[in-house]
Amino acid sequence: MGEPAGIGGEITLQAWTRRSEGLPCFFAIDDPERLAALAARLGMAVPIQPIGSPDDAPDVFQRALPVLAQPLAEMVGPGCPAPANAASVRASIARAVELARTGAASAVVTNPIHKAVMYQGGFRFPGHTEFLAHLLGLDGSEVMMLACPSLRVVPVTIHLSLAEALRSLSQASIVAAGMTTSRALATDFALGRPRLAVAGLNPHAGENGAMGREEIDIIAPAVAELQAAGIDAFGPLPPDTMFHAAARARYDAALCMYHDQALIPLKTLGFDEGVNVTLGLPIVRTSPDHGTAFEIAGTGRASAASLMEALRLAASIAHNRRTATP
Amino acid sequence: MGEPAGIGGEITLQAWTRRSEGLPCFFAIDDPERLAALAARLGMAVPIQPIGSPDDAPDVFQRALPVLAQPLAEMVGPGCPAPANAASVRASIARAVELARTGAASAVVTNPIHKAVMYQGGFRFPGHTEFLAHLLGLDGSEVMMLACPSLRVVPVTIHLSLAEALRSLSQASIVAAGMTTSRALATDFALGRPRLAVAGLNPHAGENGAMGREEIDIIAPAVAELQAAGIDAFGPLPPDTMFHAAARARYDAALCMYHDQALIPLKTLGFDEGVNVTLGLPIVRTSPDHGTAFEIAGTGRASAASLMEALRLAASIAHNRRTATP
Repeated sequence: MGEPAGIGGEITLQAWTRRSEGLPCFFAIDDPERLAALAARLGMAVPIQPIGSPDDAPDVFQRALPVLAQPLAEMVGPGCPAPANAASVRASIARAVELARTGAASAVVTNPIHKAVMYQGGFRFPGHTEFLAHLLGLDGSEVMMLACPSLRVVPVTIHLSLAEALRSLSQASIVAAGMTTSRALATDFALGRPRLAVAGLNPHAGENGAMGREEIDIIAPAVAELQAAGIDAFGPLPPDTMFHAAARARYDAALCMYHDQALIPLKTLGFDEGVNVTLGLPIVRTSPDHGTAFEIAGTGRASAASLMEALRLAASIAHNRRTATP
Repeated sequence: MGEPAGIGGEITLQAWTRRSEGLPCFFAIDDPERLAALAARLGMAVPIQPIGSPDDAPDVFQRALPVLAQPLAEMVGPGCPAPANAASVRASIARAVELARTGAASAVVTNPIHKAVMYQGGFRFPGHTEFLAHLLGLDGSEVMMLACPSLRVVPVTIHLSLAEALRSLSQASIVAAGMTTSRALATDFALGRPRLAVAGLNPHAGENGAMGREEIDIIAPAVAELQAAGIDAFGPLPPDTMFHAAARARYDAALCMYHDQALIPLKTLGFDEGVNVTLGLPIVRTSPDHGTAFEIAGTGRASAASLMEALRLAASIAHNRRTATP
């Protein structure tokens, strides 16, 4: 469902109308009435079909959008969120995770939530990923990967100020992210021997210490440790010359030292098609790489491209996990 | 000339053979013998024609590469620089600047130099730009812009470690770079009312202080100061969503807070075509946006694309300055 006042509903409807574009069978965990009202408002011919169980979804999917009912506390207009719905939003995530955990669903795709509204409604996690880790009883070794058709990036530090990211970067965190990423590229992306490009932190990767010592003191030792563990990692690379087409051909994922080092090239290359994948979880989880977009919610202008990529990638990872050599 | 053991010579020869691709008339300040030997080595049919004065270049240019002689102290092989040539390299820059200053040449295009070799040879400036500022008696208000066909970026801090860049960022330096950039876009790029996008520093531009206060304390006040000076500046923008095509259509140049924030999108979008332009100089100066590339020098594999863009842009800026309303 995601935040019901955001664009999650309309991009879900849109994705269903474009289901012939290589999308897997999917069902929504959402309020059927609000989806029907939204379809009517936008003039979209999307029959909404409540289902009693995920098992009913495949039969329904070609003629209607299957919806597992998760009623809202309050009907809300586009762009006007209500904290009273936070419990429903939270419950829809928990239910999706439970269905994936038990194998009733192959994967979870989470539509964007709005953190401030969730907090007002009593939600206590920094974001989706931490809530998922809590539901699954995990230890925090999961990492965020962003993928678009031409690039995969993993930021080692994420939602920190740049100054704080510099302070928190460590050899251990780079190695942990590299290990999780390498394993996930093998099992989830079916890459035999994943190649990991590790970015430097400073301009020109520090020019041998002339512009910063993090490459010498932290990043190069982390690369050596990953290599010693049998991982095909190389770097630290000068950050500005590692994202053009010829450079990207040399690796399967780039390990980045801070949020924008990863997100700037990703969104420059694939703004509408970026997908967020959580690596290192026992379940498969992807999400579109954008927010609730309150400013355009209800106008029909939102693009479903990222959600559609998230659905395709979730199906692909689920398939690869099923067929992976144990 | 640039570093004679680097790729400067061969990309100059290559640019001449492709002179029909919209290049202005240009001449080299270089050692004619070494250029002739290089052309022979690479099997390139480039007649070398020494000239006595820049005035002779236009007559020569269509049938031969005009060269104003600047003899080397020592003939060097590709990839094998000699500190003894530093004085010649330096003299070629000084001569180019003098010709541009007096109007004998319209612009200076500098091929890459190798700083370590120049230092061993007695050169005492951090780089080309600082040497040019010294030759022209300037105060340091010049700024570096990098341009490719789809993006122009100006890093406010440049060759500093990321930690040092964070420490040195100030409202005054952002305003100074913004003023110089705005003026140059008007006179050099013939843009009536230049639009300046100012990047934030932190992820999501700090999210109202939740991830860093530089946007609130430094960048937003700088944007306000630029606006008060009549400049069409806006920001601070979230750095990751300002470089895709639709975002780029909203501005003429992006003012960036650190080296890689500017260089990552630039080199991701236009790796082979990036050009370095020094704004705020009394003369016109551009350069290709790459180094001496010792590892491929002499193989003929170097691309002249960036040098050719630098030549075209230098001619365009010179033209715009001549025709600008005073």
